[in-house]
Amino acid sequence: MQVISAIPALREALAGRGRIVLVPTMGNLHAGHISLMEQARAHGDTVVASIFVNRLQFGPNEDFDKYPRTFEADCAKLREAGVDILFAPTEADLYPEPQTVQVDPGPVQELLEGECRPGHFRGVATVVLKLFNAVQPAVALFGKKDYQQLMVIRHMVRQLALPIAIVGGDTVRADDGLALSSRNGYLSEAERAEAPRLARTLAALRAAVLAGERDYAKLERDAVAALNAAGWQTDYVALRQQSDLTPPSPAAAPATGANAVPLVILAAARLGKTRLIDNLEI
Amino acid sequence: MQVISAIPALREALAGRGRIVLVPTMGNLHAGHISLMEQARAHGDTVVASIFVNRLQFGPNEDFDKYPRTFEADCAKLREAGVDILFAPTEADLYPEPQTVQVDPGPVQELLEGECRPGHFRGVATVVLKLFNAVQPAVALFGKKDYQQLMVIRHMVRQLALPIAIVGGDTVRADDGLALSSRNGYLSEAERAEAPRLARTLAALRAAVLAGERDYAKLERDAVAALNAAGWQTDYVALRQQSDLTPPSPAAAPATGANAVPLVILAAARLGKTRLIDNLEI
Repeated sequence: MQVISAIPALREALAGRGRIVLVPTMGNLHAGHISLMEQARAHGDTVVASIFVNRLQFGPNEDFDKYPRTFEADCAKLREAGVDILFAPTEADLYPEPQTVQVDPGPVQELLEGECRPGHFRGVATVVLKLFNAVQPAVALFGKKDYQQLMVIRHMVRQLALPIAIVGGDTVRADDGLALSSRNGYLSEAERAEAPRLARTLAALRAAVLAGERDYAKLERDAVAALNAAGWQTDYVALRQQSDLTPPSPAAAPATGANAVPLVILAAARLGKTRLIDNLEI
Repeated sequence: MQVISAIPALREALAGRGRIVLVPTMGNLHAGHISLMEQARAHGDTVVASIFVNRLQFGPNEDFDKYPRTFEADCAKLREAGVDILFAPTEADLYPEPQTVQVDPGPVQELLEGECRPGHFRGVATVVLKLFNAVQPAVALFGKKDYQQLMVIRHMVRQLALPIAIVGGDTVRADDGLALSSRNGYLSEAERAEAPRLARTLAALRAAVLAGERDYAKLERDAVAALNAAGWQTDYVALRQQSDLTPPSPAAAPATGANAVPLVILAAARLGKTRLIDNLEI
């Protein structure tokens, strides 16, 4: 595996490499990332992973500085997974000057995660476009764990006419249901034992919808109350349309049946100082 | 010359075409555009021109609807100039849905033209990025007549790590000095006779700077007064640094000599209902 940090060197290494597949990450790799690397192989000739903790997508009070950086271990995992090239730019490589040109991702940035983390999706869209331009992949893979991020990127690719196919990878979970995430490492032992409640809450909400419950607002309220009663501080539990993450109308949008509108339940909640997100498609 | 309106057909036509050179235009082609087409040939294997009157870069009270559209004559000129492919998308081809993902070009959009035309450079940057993604050129040419636009595009290309070389083409002028522009067609006979004063004003200002005048603010004020006295409504005459279009400090930035800072004079002024822009590098 070649490890490259500068964009010109990357371009040189990629010239004539055939169909390129990119898996962008912020490092601290877990089985969810590695699953994407393994899927990537089927989509092209050369698999490129990137590791870059993108300051632009962190708010001023967020965890940019303490975000886990485990570069050596990440390299070993990527080699093991058969990745061809690791693009690991420094901040000077990717932001040699203040990044004043940015991608405005439109109204989807105002919802849910965007509402809780102002500027987050602008930072995500900008760095992903820049990674796309540096690597010029034919295909790029992103985990469904960051569901709204995947939607922002699909939307950007379509609206900017980028010649890149976007593939979403299923969320990988621990045996007890907790979605794998770099931020799980922040959890104390007691918090880690409590954490699977988030996935269980989503599963219960899905079961209720599939059983015919149509008072979505009540389902959301009850789920938030149950989490908070168990010690969480919940930002949102939201049942939304998969297409644009807006709320479905219960009448017009049954979750099942002939006129089914694909739905998804998304949640973000804090356990102690750790903010976890998860989602479940219906 | 192939004429193509849909992005998928364009991609098919461009596959395997070698090094692609793009010259984006809004049509109503004059000798300035054709000069860019002729220069384009030296930069690659396939010359693509585009014609698209981009609604996104026009303000609500601007001339989008009456902007001159002369498609048949344009095609004849492009054939004559040896252009290989004309990409002429319809609005449905380029904006099949409301364009909510946009490029924010940063602080340069607040100055000069950007101040007079809010949102203009956001619209320019967004459509140019989209054309770049559709055509994927190695080189793109833009006229220096739209000086700030050229700067916005160079800045975008650098900051988004686009693998595209940007080439600026010199402004082509009528014998009396008037910079060629599609908007010259709006001028009455009397206005057309008056119009070269704009270029003469810039030339006089350049001569004064080269002769040692350092009170730039006074030069600008006098130029505006002279234009307005001749019946113009002047938006700005501005002596700026070429690098970022900010004002030079007279002490730190002599226009000539060993520590010379490259300067440019930019102007925008209205003659009757027609708004003309021009510029001159020092």
